[in-house]
Amino acid sequence: MIKEIKGGVTAAQGFSASCTAAGIKYKDRTDMAMVYSKVPCVTAGTYTKNVVKAAPVLWDRELTDSDKKVSAVVINAGIANACTGEEGFSYCRKTSDAAKEVLKLTDSEVLVASTGVIGKQLPIDRIVAGTKVLATKLSDTVEAGDEASKAIMTTDTHNKQIAFEFEIGGKKCVIGGMCKGSGMIHPNMCTMLAFITTDVMIDKKLMLKALREDIEDTFNMVSVDGDTSTNDSVMLLANGLAGNEEIRDENSAEYALFKEALHGVTLFMAKSIAADGEGATKLFEVRVVNVNDKAKAKTLALSVIKSSLTKAAVYGNDANVGRIMCALGYSGADFDPYRVDITISSENGTEQLVENGVPVDFDEEIATSILKGKAVTALCDMKEGSAEATAWGCDLTYDYVKINADYRS
Amino acid sequence: MIKEIKGGVTAAQGFSASCTAAGIKYKDRTDMAMVYSKVPCVTAGTYTKNVVKAAPVLWDRELTDSDKKVSAVVINAGIANACTGEEGFSYCRKTSDAAKEVLKLTDSEVLVASTGVIGKQLPIDRIVAGTKVLATKLSDTVEAGDEASKAIMTTDTHNKQIAFEFEIGGKKCVIGGMCKGSGMIHPNMCTMLAFITTDVMIDKKLMLKALREDIEDTFNMVSVDGDTSTNDSVMLLANGLAGNEEIRDENSAEYALFKEALHGVTLFMAKSIAADGEGATKLFEVRVVNVNDKAKAKTLALSVIKSSLTKAAVYGNDANVGRIMCALGYSGADFDPYRVDITISSENGTEQLVENGVPVDFDEEIATSILKGKAVTALCDMKEGSAEATAWGCDLTYDYVKINADYRS
Repeated sequence: MIKEIKGGVTAAQGFSASCTAAGIKYKDRTDMAMVYSKVPCVTAGTYTKNVVKAAPVLWDRELTDSDKKVSAVVINAGIANACTGEEGFSYCRKTSDAAKEVLKLTDSEVLVASTGVIGKQLPIDRIVAGTKVLATKLSDTVEAGDEASKAIMTTDTHNKQIAFEFEIGGKKCVIGGMCKGSGMIHPNMCTMLAFITTDVMIDKKLMLKALREDIEDTFNMVSVDGDTSTNDSVMLLANGLAGNEEIRDENSAEYALFKEALHGVTLFMAKSIAADGEGATKLFEVRVVNVNDKAKAKTLALSVIKSSLTKAAVYGNDANVGRIMCALGYSGADFDPYRVDITISSENGTEQLVENGVPVDFDEEIATSILKGKAVTALCDMKEGSAEATAWGCDLTYDYVKINADYRS
Repeated sequence: MIKEIKGGVTAAQGFSASCTAAGIKYKDRTDMAMVYSKVPCVTAGTYTKNVVKAAPVLWDRELTDSDKKVSAVVINAGIANACTGEEGFSYCRKTSDAAKEVLKLTDSEVLVASTGVIGKQLPIDRIVAGTKVLATKLSDTVEAGDEASKAIMTTDTHNKQIAFEFEIGGKKCVIGGMCKGSGMIHPNMCTMLAFITTDVMIDKKLMLKALREDIEDTFNMVSVDGDTSTNDSVMLLANGLAGNEEIRDENSAEYALFKEALHGVTLFMAKSIAADGEGATKLFEVRVVNVNDKAKAKTLALSVIKSSLTKAAVYGNDANVGRIMCALGYSGADFDPYRVDITISSENGTEQLVENGVPVDFDEEIATSILKGKAVTALCDMKEGSAEATAWGCDLTYDYVKINADYRS
């Protein structure tokens, strides 16, 4: 049994966090955070597939791909440290060195992560000073995790964290995490930073396998704007303090339970990021069911979730179902348009809009009321097989344009 | 030598046009148009690759793929006749039948085209009545072509037409046309209707070859919003009245000249559609040069032109060049990010923003002034080969959201 508990990145045993205002870009708010484990962790990471990778992505990938253990993560918001060349990469090393020195790490390493404007160099002196402050403020309270999750926000409107508790072999285990992400969000390791901590004892390879499989159905099914960032990273740190027998068998019940708990964290994060998309007024979910192939179901769902015209109609509470049909049609997947049924639903009700590819005479008032919900789902029944996929996004609003027309200032 | 002349669809010998207000959706404006050739035409057509194809696309494709000749095109704006099943297809036949009857066509056919809302049935009685009116109002004047090009607009802010004159074997030849398109515009036969007429005598197969090759570098390099419509159609009608010896040799100078004139028409149309994208305040052009492969150059150019974040920054006159680097990076094409140079230009000047993948210390004021131009170009030099591609689009604005949040009402 998996139970949601309070907290996020500090929920699991042995993890602490802190934050500080280093003055990188924002005024009057925190903009750096540290996550620390008193016992070095095995790690797994998945990163952006963008050819233009931020410096910290290169730094972290090398580290999580190695057998080295990790004790801390240093994160900054405001500047992404992307398109910054060798100078940018050297700043990852300087940040890590500062953290290692002040945390007195001798046989474990430090991950770094950045989010914000592309193409500017970090004010490295302030980052190094901030790192030293962070090390002095570490705390394992729920509040410390909460504050850390606020410090990593950019255009996010609220912080995002979650934690779950479960048992393995009689030992209490916890997995929790925090993430940020609002704009530049699109599949291929969606545009965000996520830090997941757990006290489970688990084999590194198996943990990476679980993470890689999981993100295909969660983070990689989110799109806010179709732009895949340079900085997308999900990092999973396990310090083993739960005291369970190490999970080593991918066919074991324990591994299945760990995967389920991990999925609870990542699903929450994916949906939270979608719902808090830049300028969004609601979560938009597209479920494509009864498809003859899973990959095709994903292609169809992502095509609808990415459609600017559909997203603008969802914003306007306009049941313009032709746009969903159109977006299915240009997805690149082949199907019989005259088989498709489309039904929309939200906390305000359910209404079928299309039967066998042709709009039915639905009630516009009911449809508008449904679209006014905070979480709107479009269910597309392709009636050709048994595979399905779900994608998450949001509506396209004036505020999205406003936020992005002058992001740098 | 190819010379631009006045007019559009009625510029070539033997072509006339008309329009009428049939009351399909809009009030106080014309919404139907007819193009007619007094001599039956050979035709070529290219259509949307969307799986969900509008009824008129199915109708026209069958016709232009056959050896049948065509004397007229009937177009309506307001309802797209897409997702309308067999009933919708039967309305194409009814419209064609009405036109054939009143135009007394016995051995030539009628193309039909629709643009507007998806998923609604046409008011066929009004369409048939309108078709009959259109046949009585045909005129070969420049004004008649002009008025026809206004009648086919939907969210377009102005009509779009052009014509060119050239000589083949001492005979004056003309090619001209009109198009519409503003939203739901994206490669794969971009979302629009284009009607091109010429009095050149040319072999049908050669004409189709010219059209197919041409649209790859013009219409299919346009994106307003990434949504590929159900109705995209380009139709080319040639009645042969120029009296030139029929063009039959694809290696002839005459064929090259015809292609050049056709390209003049399509390039104008593609750029006009991009600049008049829904809500657009400016034309945005992306040129990607010195790439080692033409297809890759197109992939890169289209990725930038489609990037919502880049488009919003262009709207805000914000030289946020990280977004262009990011969009190149997630295009799916592989390249060395630390080789890329990026320069922006417009009627207000030129400024280099990126050298070898890293932003240079450019003048923000100059960059903002350039971005305030009516036609802004981003030149991305990949420094790896000699292929290049250009894509056209526009900025992403509040008005795009406004127009599409409540399109149907």
